[in-house]
Amino acid sequence: MSELQARIKQWMRTHSEEGMAFLQRLVQVPSTQGHEAAAQALVAEKLQQMGLEVDVWELDGEALKKHPYFCSSRPDFDNCPNVVGILRGSGGGKSIILNGHIDVVPEGEREQWSDDPYSGAIRDGKMYGRGVTDMKGGNVSLLLAIQAVQGLGLRLKGDVIFQSVVEEESGGAGTLATVMRGYQADAAIIPEPTNMRIFPKQQGSMWFRIQVKGRAAHGGTRYEGVSAIEKSMLVIRHIQALEERRNARITDPLYQNTPIPIPINIGVIQGGNWPSSVPDLVRLEGRMGVSPEETIEEAKLEMEQWLERLAEQDPWFKEHAPVLEWFGARWIPGSMDMEHELMHTLAEQYRNVAGAEPVIEASPWGTDGGLLTQAGKTPAIVFGPGVTEVAHYPNEYIELDKVTEAAEIIALTLIQWCGLDETNG
Amino acid sequence: MSELQARIKQWMRTHSEEGMAFLQRLVQVPSTQGHEAAAQALVAEKLQQMGLEVDVWELDGEALKKHPYFCSSRPDFDNCPNVVGILRGSGGGKSIILNGHIDVVPEGEREQWSDDPYSGAIRDGKMYGRGVTDMKGGNVSLLLAIQAVQGLGLRLKGDVIFQSVVEEESGGAGTLATVMRGYQADAAIIPEPTNMRIFPKQQGSMWFRIQVKGRAAHGGTRYEGVSAIEKSMLVIRHIQALEERRNARITDPLYQNTPIPIPINIGVIQGGNWPSSVPDLVRLEGRMGVSPEETIEEAKLEMEQWLERLAEQDPWFKEHAPVLEWFGARWIPGSMDMEHELMHTLAEQYRNVAGAEPVIEASPWGTDGGLLTQAGKTPAIVFGPGVTEVAHYPNEYIELDKVTEAAEIIALTLIQWCGLDETNG
Repeated sequence: MSELQARIKQWMRTHSEEGMAFLQRLVQVPSTQGHEAAAQALVAEKLQQMGLEVDVWELDGEALKKHPYFCSSRPDFDNCPNVVGILRGSGGGKSIILNGHIDVVPEGEREQWSDDPYSGAIRDGKMYGRGVTDMKGGNVSLLLAIQAVQGLGLRLKGDVIFQSVVEEESGGAGTLATVMRGYQADAAIIPEPTNMRIFPKQQGSMWFRIQVKGRAAHGGTRYEGVSAIEKSMLVIRHIQALEERRNARITDPLYQNTPIPIPINIGVIQGGNWPSSVPDLVRLEGRMGVSPEETIEEAKLEMEQWLERLAEQDPWFKEHAPVLEWFGARWIPGSMDMEHELMHTLAEQYRNVAGAEPVIEASPWGTDGGLLTQAGKTPAIVFGPGVTEVAHYPNEYIELDKVTEAAEIIALTLIQWCGLDETNG
Repeated sequence: MSELQARIKQWMRTHSEEGMAFLQRLVQVPSTQGHEAAAQALVAEKLQQMGLEVDVWELDGEALKKHPYFCSSRPDFDNCPNVVGILRGSGGGKSIILNGHIDVVPEGEREQWSDDPYSGAIRDGKMYGRGVTDMKGGNVSLLLAIQAVQGLGLRLKGDVIFQSVVEEESGGAGTLATVMRGYQADAAIIPEPTNMRIFPKQQGSMWFRIQVKGRAAHGGTRYEGVSAIEKSMLVIRHIQALEERRNARITDPLYQNTPIPIPINIGVIQGGNWPSSVPDLVRLEGRMGVSPEETIEEAKLEMEQWLERLAEQDPWFKEHAPVLEWFGARWIPGSMDMEHELMHTLAEQYRNVAGAEPVIEASPWGTDGGLLTQAGKTPAIVFGPGVTEVAHYPNEYIELDKVTEAAEIIALTLIQWCGLDETNG
């Protein structure tokens, strides 16, 4: 173990408790969509204490709406600020964005939680609460990493830009706003809950709604009508065939352990309103995965053209074409070259700290990495301490030692990536 | 044409306008479930004017609930009376029940109506309004038939029992209450909208609900879950196979012109609540047709046992059996012997008045005929002037000349069936 690595490990050992206390405070402040202000105030205060250049601003809804990558169901973004803190480098080094979202998904049914969803309770080295794994724990890893660099009195050449953004869970308007404010870097790390796996590629996704038509009739003479439920079964099978087609094309070895790299999920079905009537309308809602190798537009077009082919299977669809609509959330896919220097750096520091080979895969879900890469021209890696399986679920938790382990790996990565200014070592 | 028939035709010609005016008043008083009182008051008043023995009473919910044939979603029946009027015979003749329901189904979306749903507007010999065809028009045919007999100064030997009942559209509690009150006869006619066809048999039906289980997961890793929507597709196909099986058994020539004699209709599907989650529950609601040759219990048992066989197709159903529930409305099937004397009488009088062969079929939907037959031991024929196709639909209408034509046929049927007391011809 290098001397530097040892010092960082030592620093973590003596400061991890502070970090966990701060994580607990963050978790205890619910920050669901529209209510991020209080949590962001805590973050801004922390960045001030760390002596970073702090930038707090409210999103400009009007400007955002004009951006091609904008996606949000929100009418406005009042009182939901982004927070950025910059550790300015001495110059001549590579810059890096450390991006994490502060918004959390709703806690759902409280009965399913053993503790209060925002308790931040600690048991057996785990902290519990909505958002602790997705992704306040990852954000604290970032802060600890920067604090370690500062604590060891090290000076970096490149800038480290820490971003605490809103709206990741519903389309990425927060990260898009950082791009529009001019933030850019040579690369980025997003500590979403990957179970310490390294995701150089992230799947994109978007929501769709399909209306399938039928013709009403009395159930006793159902043969006089056309059941939208029976027709919707054809549509669902047709979509399953599209999913097979699309996944057969995926050859990327990063997906070799993934049964269905880019799934098409039908999440909601709703049709008819009377048991003894033939239903004349069924609504399907789902999520279409988008490969890192394609654009949102390409995926949309493929689905649209595929649905048109339903008419070949059943003439009913000639006269009554299903109506496809893209709505709600959307995540741009992201992809970083496997040979990108940050990949090598992060993997190397993972080996050093974890003492094992890193697992490198493609994420099965979208992150803000796509926006950073495509809108911000900042290639991003997703790597974080959170537990993938409990994200968005009741009794969400994180293993606290992973938070510090990720912090150590990221601290060493920052030093190697941004470069150490030895002039005042 | 017999002299009697000619006198009745003449009486109708001079009195049909009064009949249509009364029908219009009935239609203009909405009588949806729970709001039948005002319309029933009109009927009772009319029966008084006709000099019948009038019996008006409120249904006894407690007593009804104890009856094996009881079916209703109503907590109570306050202020929703049944009305009966008896034309007492001189004795020695056969009695008959003339049964019609006063309740109408809701008007639905008003935008789909050209007139006010309760306008009773008359255009081109048609009267429009909710309930005019199902089945206030038929009820007025009954009243006109009785009035014609009275108007001609004829005296019948057998009793004619006119019944205006509530609750037919939701399970038949009104007719069941007449049975429990002791009303019974040698036969019955129910003028539901049959387009002047004669239905000696009526299909029964009942509603069911099936809960199909899955296992939730994130849509991006949908292979970690089990889609309740995909499983529900298997359940629906399985039910379609049951429908085929059951209909293959139907050999009754009365069904020869019916594509699916006893359909199983899936009317409602609802599952999942998030586009990017794998749905863990789907609810199906439908209507199961019951053949006149089987009992409700036999049909229920067949469906229950059939669903158990799903486990043979997919082991998932072994651990997660679909949950079947019978709920809401239910209509007992009804059947009268084709050789029953009332069948011959009604068919003969139809030939006399309409000058054509009657169309004799089995009804594709349930009526109170099943209750009269099975609970009331009073075999029933369904025959009425209403237009089948517009029942329960917007812009419901009836052809007014059919109302009087049906009245003539029924009047002659009453005279032949109950017998004419010549002692004071």
